[in-house]
Amino acid sequence: MNSVDLRSSYQKTTKRLDGHGSRTIGVLQEALQSVSADQPSDMYGNGELIKTFERKIADLLGHDDAIFFPSGTMAQQIALRIWSDERNNRKVAYHRLCHLEIHEQDGLKELHGIKPVLVGEVDRLMTIDDVKALPDVSCLLLELPQRELGGLLPSREELEIICAYAREQGIRLHLDGARLLEILPYYEASAKEIAELFDSVYISFYKGLGGVAGAILAGPEAFCREARIWKRRYGGDLISLYPYILSADHYYEQRKDRMAEYYVAAKALASSLNAIPGISTRPLEPVSNMFHLYFEADKAVVEEKLIEIQSHGKIGIAGYLVEKEKGCATEINIGDSFLALTTDERENVFRQLTEAFSED
Amino acid sequence: MNSVDLRSSYQKTTKRLDGHGSRTIGVLQEALQSVSADQPSDMYGNGELIKTFERKIADLLGHDDAIFFPSGTMAQQIALRIWSDERNNRKVAYHRLCHLEIHEQDGLKELHGIKPVLVGEVDRLMTIDDVKALPDVSCLLLELPQRELGGLLPSREELEIICAYAREQGIRLHLDGARLLEILPYYEASAKEIAELFDSVYISFYKGLGGVAGAILAGPEAFCREARIWKRRYGGDLISLYPYILSADHYYEQRKDRMAEYYVAAKALASSLNAIPGISTRPLEPVSNMFHLYFEADKAVVEEKLIEIQSHGKIGIAGYLVEKEKGCATEINIGDSFLALTTDERENVFRQLTEAFSED
Repeated sequence: MNSVDLRSSYQKTTKRLDGHGSRTIGVLQEALQSVSADQPSDMYGNGELIKTFERKIADLLGHDDAIFFPSGTMAQQIALRIWSDERNNRKVAYHRLCHLEIHEQDGLKELHGIKPVLVGEVDRLMTIDDVKALPDVSCLLLELPQRELGGLLPSREELEIICAYAREQGIRLHLDGARLLEILPYYEASAKEIAELFDSVYISFYKGLGGVAGAILAGPEAFCREARIWKRRYGGDLISLYPYILSADHYYEQRKDRMAEYYVAAKALASSLNAIPGISTRPLEPVSNMFHLYFEADKAVVEEKLIEIQSHGKIGIAGYLVEKEKGCATEINIGDSFLALTTDERENVFRQLTEAFSED
Repeated sequence: MNSVDLRSSYQKTTKRLDGHGSRTIGVLQEALQSVSADQPSDMYGNGELIKTFERKIADLLGHDDAIFFPSGTMAQQIALRIWSDERNNRKVAYHRLCHLEIHEQDGLKELHGIKPVLVGEVDRLMTIDDVKALPDVSCLLLELPQRELGGLLPSREELEIICAYAREQGIRLHLDGARLLEILPYYEASAKEIAELFDSVYISFYKGLGGVAGAILAGPEAFCREARIWKRRYGGDLISLYPYILSADHYYEQRKDRMAEYYVAAKALASSLNAIPGISTRPLEPVSNMFHLYFEADKAVVEEKLIEIQSHGKIGIAGYLVEKEKGCATEINIGDSFLALTTDERENVFRQLTEAFSED
């Protein structure tokens, strides 16, 4: 048994704890179904199709302007570059598990010569004390929720204290809000109330929203003007971004008001899973639709058991596992798939997991 | 009358000299029609969908490997960066009307600190003498055909002499082959025979082929390994590129064998247009499916006349005009639209143009 088997046993399942269903071509086909065939494409960032969506999301976030990007990687590097240029300071600060630090092949450093100052620890969020201890930086990036920590969030109070402190110091604030909508039920806030704490904000359309790909970067007018120039420089100013824009809009409309349901379901599922010996979630009580699921056993052992359960029960639990200090873990994002499971199906999964992991 | 009126009068036409028809959502919908809804997405550059297409185009070009990119801008900057790193030399050479020099907001310079050496003149191709006069450069980029010159090509002989010379000098050769398939009928060559003259090759899928967007960068194995890392750094390694890949493949299959028809039709159309007083094409005899159409009159005057013709005749001639030293010009790319015109419709356009421009 190995990781390939785990992935393939997962891919064969048609019902799952995680996500909104398989990422197939059908996702795009559905989004295009109600679009008129003669609607014109966007053209290099212009045209009604892209401008209308950018305006809609700028308004949602309460920012001057917004730009649709093919990816968050591109959008966020550009945001940090602009703030860094503005302050004439190549130092920016972010958490040591920031996407830019661990998933982008050092694009920020290689393309911009920007020197990140790593904040916090690998097992906790950054605090106001960490921020107060920073050297002179042009920009502070906060990721809400902190994905690599299972989706942790500072309290609303601490968030506001950090943002107020940064503003006092003249440090620009950028929000990695890939999953911004997903945290609003916990904060009991509107997107605008959180986004307005920051100078610039990125949100993603293929995470909790389940689109095909694509991102929005929002901020002040002058910032966005510059960001459009950088988008061209990066080769992100495609002749047509409409496949991503149309699917972003379609699934945004379909799911934007379901985030509270996902959040409540995530808490319920985590609670059931934490009742199983040898299994726990991080956070113990989720603050969004996501959490990490930890198994206190060797990866190879867990893989074998999950393959067994997935093959028999037809319900997917995990497609991959990452080794941890004690055991291994995977990530669960609650979406339409979990909500579609019947009570019987959910209880079956808990029973199977309990039987499998209580053996040890 | 102004440019906005010209564009809108053009957009209202349903038949045209240029292109393959309007860039509408229908273009993507058609490409997805025969795709199974449960076909899995590519995932961050992996998966059968992307790998199969990359292999197919690598084989077409006779190169080791090929990478699908969201844009040619991204692909070509990365190619020049890799060759520049390999030679530890930040100087690269390209024609002064190169896409990287005039359409990319200096991305190559801003993101990589690469210093281009501009070759040739604004009114002619580079020659072997220009190349021999170059300082020490890591890479020479050739664009075939040279789009900004109306789609000019060196003779096959001169092309081979330039490439042989660069190889002797240890200069890497990169082909901007955005329109590579479009020039094969003139060269009476296969894609492989031209692409193999170069160390790396870029081709586009939304020009002569009429896809939605997207590009391929092909080259040696080690080069492609590095290019995939840079693609991630740029934020071009999207979770799903399939909207572009599926449409690229669909229209590649539909049009790859029609390039000779487009070329023959471009020559016939140019010949008819050159017979009209005050109108000429560049080149006089096209060497691909494209040419520039010159009017020996002020832009404002030409705009007014074209709006008149387009409004009455319902056949689109130009959506924009660029001012030139003597008069103004537009670009014509022959594709399915021109081939769909009847003999009567074509003659009507020639008659109307003759009447309009002989008045002066």
